[in-house]
Amino acid sequence: MEISLTPEQQTDLQTFGRRLATLRKQRGWSQEKLALESGLARSYLGGVERGQRNIALLNILKLARTLECDPGELFRT
Amino acid sequence: MEISLTPEQQTDLQTFGRRLATLRKQRGWSQEKLALESGLARSYLGGVERGQRNIALLNILKLARTLECDPGELFRT
Repeated sequence: MEISLTPEQQTDLQTFGRRLATLRKQRGWSQEKLALESGLARSYLGGVERGQRNIALLNILKLARTLECDPGELFRT
Repeated sequence: MEISLTPEQQTDLQTFGRRLATLRKQRGWSQEKLALESGLARSYLGGVERGQRNIALLNILKLARTLECDPGELFRT
């Protein structure tokens, strides 16, 4: 990502990414499996989970539906 | 927005936008007030509320903090 983020923003993205990884692993899914099921690229998902991507609404909803969870679950800390 | 969206995606963005508008109005805030408090442009917020913007994670969190609600509240339907 070319834009520079504040430390707080980096933390926010990392928190979301870790939460996504937790929910994915709770289902016993690999990143590859989540990529296949969601239609998102594995490399993109890796970036999101590492807190390197500022994922937007439509992809957040796509992931929540793929993981069959409420979108709010992805924001729970 | 230049990219073309499916009807389902348009509905998703509109649902989020309506929810944001509801939470804003529950506080008796104008778009202008929310813009001032959040640091986001009023025209951008108008676009989000009309479902014309695929708002990303960091701005979703900014709005939730400004409205003092859980981010998940913004996804409640």
